[in-house]
Amino acid sequence: MTASFDRMWSELAPIGRNPKTGGYHRLAWTGEDLQLREWFAAEAGRRGLDLTEDLAGNQWAWWGAPGRGDAVVIGSHLDSVPDGGAFDGPLGVVSALAVIEALQAEGWSPQRPVAVVNFGDEEGARFGIACAGSRILTGALAGDRARGLTDGAGRSMAEALRRVGRDPEHFGPDPEMLDRIGCFVELHVEQGRGLIDLDQPVAIGTAIWPHGRWRIELAGQANHAGTTRLADRQDPMLDLARLLLATRAAAEGHHAVATVGKVVVQPNGVNAIPSAVTAWLDARAADPAAVRAVVAELSAGFGLEPESWTEQTPFAVALIDRLQSVLPAAPRLATGAGHDAGILANAGIETAMLFVRNPTGISHSPAEHAERDDCLAGVRALTEVVRELAG
Amino acid sequence: MTASFDRMWSELAPIGRNPKTGGYHRLAWTGEDLQLREWFAAEAGRRGLDLTEDLAGNQWAWWGAPGRGDAVVIGSHLDSVPDGGAFDGPLGVVSALAVIEALQAEGWSPQRPVAVVNFGDEEGARFGIACAGSRILTGALAGDRARGLTDGAGRSMAEALRRVGRDPEHFGPDPEMLDRIGCFVELHVEQGRGLIDLDQPVAIGTAIWPHGRWRIELAGQANHAGTTRLADRQDPMLDLARLLLATRAAAEGHHAVATVGKVVVQPNGVNAIPSAVTAWLDARAADPAAVRAVVAELSAGFGLEPESWTEQTPFAVALIDRLQSVLPAAPRLATGAGHDAGILANAGIETAMLFVRNPTGISHSPAEHAERDDCLAGVRALTEVVRELAG
Repeated sequence: MTASFDRMWSELAPIGRNPKTGGYHRLAWTGEDLQLREWFAAEAGRRGLDLTEDLAGNQWAWWGAPGRGDAVVIGSHLDSVPDGGAFDGPLGVVSALAVIEALQAEGWSPQRPVAVVNFGDEEGARFGIACAGSRILTGALAGDRARGLTDGAGRSMAEALRRVGRDPEHFGPDPEMLDRIGCFVELHVEQGRGLIDLDQPVAIGTAIWPHGRWRIELAGQANHAGTTRLADRQDPMLDLARLLLATRAAAEGHHAVATVGKVVVQPNGVNAIPSAVTAWLDARAADPAAVRAVVAELSAGFGLEPESWTEQTPFAVALIDRLQSVLPAAPRLATGAGHDAGILANAGIETAMLFVRNPTGISHSPAEHAERDDCLAGVRALTEVVRELAG
Repeated sequence: MTASFDRMWSELAPIGRNPKTGGYHRLAWTGEDLQLREWFAAEAGRRGLDLTEDLAGNQWAWWGAPGRGDAVVIGSHLDSVPDGGAFDGPLGVVSALAVIEALQAEGWSPQRPVAVVNFGDEEGARFGIACAGSRILTGALAGDRARGLTDGAGRSMAEALRRVGRDPEHFGPDPEMLDRIGCFVELHVEQGRGLIDLDQPVAIGTAIWPHGRWRIELAGQANHAGTTRLADRQDPMLDLARLLLATRAAAEGHHAVATVGKVVVQPNGVNAIPSAVTAWLDARAADPAAVRAVVAELSAGFGLEPESWTEQTPFAVALIDRLQSVLPAAPRLATGAGHDAGILANAGIETAMLFVRNPTGISHSPAEHAERDDCLAGVRALTEVVRELAG
């Protein structure tokens, strides 16, 4: 199992890697994404798994014929944020494939179908909506709205899909695929410092914090930087400065985290006062009232357009208890990061997660890391989980 | 002359125009720039002018054989800032070509060679250095440094030149071309409100304010927006906010103008705390001490890397007096905007400018404008100037 894990890891290592930063650029429906999808298909083939792509563009590799409502699903996603880490997503897919190989090598056979999933467009880095693949699958994001989303170059998702040979008109919810899922356990690298503090390699995920994204349009008047008196300026950069400081203050005041990580300046010329600045707010907290308080405080000074909202998502207590029965040492953790597991849980599917320790506590960055021993502990934990759930 | 002016104006109107904003995107050595260069070559041909391109990529259309140090040069540039106006640059080129046509139609012949110039890369919007064409021509910007400048996509000027069939190795100063120039009069749309206040269509330019550009690198630690505690963050967006507010305060305190119009955020993802933000400062004032004071004040809190600096540039008093002799009603104006005329003046060439009224006072924006009657008044003024200087 370790040889196969190492092989898969080294095959993925060069795909979409920026040699300057060491970070990954694997955005949805790009050439890098297609390479990753082909790699996934080949890995399914190696294990004799049947590959299907659902109507939302997610890939499924089946061990045993899918039935109705009884499949044990494991896996995660392969896409990344711009200049992201190697582990966020791929660790869950590689671990799931390693689990199948380990169980097959034992001669073990599942009593229920087992599937490995590669969810598409989890990061939302290209079209602005996180977990787009699972949201479209479950109907949480309508096909029409998804098709109309545009990337930074102004290309719509419909156009992006056509360019990679998909028919965007058929993009939409896939209730038949959803009906096959009995439960979903997503293994993921931890994105904070919880397991460092607990001194454990693997935790059981219990819940996802509520979180949302808002877009703020700051209007200005484009003008020449050298000839426009200060008094005559409508410079949206000053509004941006106030927004950035107000965001941090609101987060501090309400025990939340809030981030402006993306800004688009028009026209973004050194000698031009900008005509407009668009900023995106990401806000989360253990308590949804704290997120609402941050948004209310900022809405007093700025126009916040909601782009996405995910309620607090508790995972299934019965499933968590079964995971704990085979992983007695694993602590339980909630997380501020969104995951496809959260989307599926909100669609009524019995869902839980496993987290693998991240010694830097850093994610969405080339510094994101997991030690090989901890990764292998994650594979062993997930193996026991599949044995318990599909045995 | 008006028919030819109108024809040229309508031919240029669609090139690089964004139909959504009405603004122009005509960056150096792009397809749009090549279209503009071909248009200029064709206009030279229509008038029987000899076309040459100097070693810095600037185009020259000659009426009369060039000699040594005696040419009367008129013209401006055709490139734009991103989403810029139609007048900044093209008004000077179109007016110069209209002047030649008007004088030729009269049967008038120059006693000294007259040239129309189209300076390349005046805005510096692609490679970050304004007036690159005239700076390279005069040696103010070394060929080696120019070749190594990179655009937003990471492409070097050398590569950009090769892609449009130029040999970057020969890019550099062109003293032979410079030696041909007797004097340069650049007609340009005004970029402020001076002529509105003075209620005049045309002014004589007397000087360019000192101005410079600085780059500020704000370092952070990329991390996940949902899982990183506020206390653990190194978020460069907060430094950006402080920089933006400090810039406005310093400009107000020292009677200068200062602008942060361009910002690049890495990786610029909604759910990622940025790893780095780069901001560019543009600062100018009538008094160079005021610019120095702004930079000194900001340098106390931030690392300012100088990218370009142009001293206060007075135009030639004797030339200004000759312009005034044929344009007795024209007021005199200094400007905060940089121009190729300033680069040539600093290289020891006798230089002056004409400004045409801008009823919005707005420039570097689709709202930039000049009334047709004022444009034609500019052509008539420039015609009298050429008659005086080359007669």
